[in-house]
Amino acid sequence: MSRQHNFSAGPGVLPESVVQQTQEALWELEGCGQGLAETSHRGKAFDAVFQRCKDRVRTLLGLSEDQEVLLLHGGARTQFYQIPMNLLRGGTAAYLDTGAWSHYAIEDARRFGEVVVPWSSREQGYDSVPAAGQWGSVPAGTRYLHYTSNNTIAGTEYDHVPEVDGTWLVCDASSNILSRPIDGSRFDLLYAGAQKNLGTSGVTLVVIRKALVEAGDKDLPPMLRYDKQVAKDSMLNTPCTVGIYVVERVLAWIEAQGGVAAVDARNDRQAAAVYGTIDATGFWHGKAQRASRSRMNVTFTTGDDALDARFVKEATAAGLHGLKGHRSVGGLRASLYNAQTDAAVDALVAFMKDFEQRVG
Amino acid sequence: MSRQHNFSAGPGVLPESVVQQTQEALWELEGCGQGLAETSHRGKAFDAVFQRCKDRVRTLLGLSEDQEVLLLHGGARTQFYQIPMNLLRGGTAAYLDTGAWSHYAIEDARRFGEVVVPWSSREQGYDSVPAAGQWGSVPAGTRYLHYTSNNTIAGTEYDHVPEVDGTWLVCDASSNILSRPIDGSRFDLLYAGAQKNLGTSGVTLVVIRKALVEAGDKDLPPMLRYDKQVAKDSMLNTPCTVGIYVVERVLAWIEAQGGVAAVDARNDRQAAAVYGTIDATGFWHGKAQRASRSRMNVTFTTGDDALDARFVKEATAAGLHGLKGHRSVGGLRASLYNAQTDAAVDALVAFMKDFEQRVG
Repeated sequence: MSRQHNFSAGPGVLPESVVQQTQEALWELEGCGQGLAETSHRGKAFDAVFQRCKDRVRTLLGLSEDQEVLLLHGGARTQFYQIPMNLLRGGTAAYLDTGAWSHYAIEDARRFGEVVVPWSSREQGYDSVPAAGQWGSVPAGTRYLHYTSNNTIAGTEYDHVPEVDGTWLVCDASSNILSRPIDGSRFDLLYAGAQKNLGTSGVTLVVIRKALVEAGDKDLPPMLRYDKQVAKDSMLNTPCTVGIYVVERVLAWIEAQGGVAAVDARNDRQAAAVYGTIDATGFWHGKAQRASRSRMNVTFTTGDDALDARFVKEATAAGLHGLKGHRSVGGLRASLYNAQTDAAVDALVAFMKDFEQRVG
Repeated sequence: MSRQHNFSAGPGVLPESVVQQTQEALWELEGCGQGLAETSHRGKAFDAVFQRCKDRVRTLLGLSEDQEVLLLHGGARTQFYQIPMNLLRGGTAAYLDTGAWSHYAIEDARRFGEVVVPWSSREQGYDSVPAAGQWGSVPAGTRYLHYTSNNTIAGTEYDHVPEVDGTWLVCDASSNILSRPIDGSRFDLLYAGAQKNLGTSGVTLVVIRKALVEAGDKDLPPMLRYDKQVAKDSMLNTPCTVGIYVVERVLAWIEAQGGVAAVDARNDRQAAAVYGTIDATGFWHGKAQRASRSRMNVTFTTGDDALDARFVKEATAAGLHGLKGHRSVGGLRASLYNAQTDAAVDALVAFMKDFEQRVG
């Protein structure tokens, strides 16, 4: 076989140029005489990659001087407990419950304090996220509001950043980070597993305001303390060097595309093409409420499990990979992360139309 | 430049064949139509890699049926707290204090119970590990004995597995795992960051006996529970897929070398060549006590900081990279992990002799 169109929900498609650069770096990293996977994380060559990576995060997210950039182990799910362990400490936090992953984050947070849930679509199968200004309110003294900016399984996404007043804003942006222009300086803590829009699995980006670093619990093992991670520049132990290299290259690729705005425009076009196909006739059904539809993960179904399974099988045979919905919800899902190609989306749309004509 | 001889203490040298296989897999993983870094951790292609990886660990370590194999995030340093968090819980554990990393493990463990240290070389600059049968004893009811089988910074290594009686045996084998034949079934918990002898950074191997999985604290976030990680086959979230692939390929390479015994014999020869050069005249000084010398990390010095610095500089210029000692102790260090080549060791020995002749 050769490389096929890749609609995987994560790890997801990367720009081919980044894959090629990583192949070359594995043999020798930027003329340093050692391979990317074999060179010290404290050596000059990797340090240059690491510092460039953090700088690009700062630029692309528009961070301010009072925000720190960490590149940690553990995936976003490690942040689910590290955040409340550091910042909740018996107080109250508010969580918007918009998907399986936000629910896991809530379960972890409840171990460390009071959790209020001002908004939830759990009873509706997580088919929506709150509209701007509609998420409700929090009790006075709430430490932070946590939300999940894109819900990979349900296929829903906020098209805005929730407004907060007098409480920290914490966001799990794993599956739509840098997919649209946002003002990164608004977030008190922003985190993302890398394996969707930033790179591959093994690295977690954490952007944290200095006030939260200071407010974090100091009576914890060093690996769990944000202040220790900041002081050691994410190197309390060996970071995931290959993964960090890939993130740095993906960020450079975003810049080369024309920045987040250019990527945003392409994401818009691609999502419109697939949703347009879904909405054109009564054959397909989008699973998320229209106002909450994700541009990153398009969830849909024919309404018939057997037909969905046939679609996946025939699509795979036609070179369209990764279209099966998450095992917990079934149906179909096309993930259109930043690196998704127009060619793949065109092929998907053509295949959907052909399939509909054949079996509809 | 091109690839130079690599004596890095970690991430360290990999077999060139593994680097080449990883380059190929990044473009497309084993004919699956997707790149290694871009394919779902739950897809057939990666699952085959994952299961093969665990099977090879079982075979090469000689594990028994009551031991589980996990491939986790976080590095060995995450195990420093995850182990006592799960297994100590107010009880007593014994730690052998043989290096900076074992000391960090002790500091973390003290948060979760009583720690006794029956043996320490801290006051002697960690220049030794206990000889067989000489580590002392533990109080009745001690939950486990923890030791670090190779100390990367000091350059010391156990040539045996400490005997325990009625207490669990826990080992941080990050820097010498699979470098010599050991009976893996003796360990109740064995862990290793991958970036020295197993692969590259981002993956941690944890071998844990079922009794310890069961005994672990169940009142923790899922990511910190061994039972949850076992139940989900290390996939409570997306594992470090690229890193796991590299581990699987390194294990296959060990098998192709003739297994651990063949690798052990080469490690013996290589270490003997470098230590032999150190001991041949009075010019070089080995830093560890002879009986405790590590075959993985040879630490030495001319006894003169300026001369050591000159050696590092000239060696680097001659294509011998990564010979500077750890920044906390200075001096020189040649890491001779499993994948170290005879050509690199020959070149190092020749360069040492030449350097000595020129400046001695």
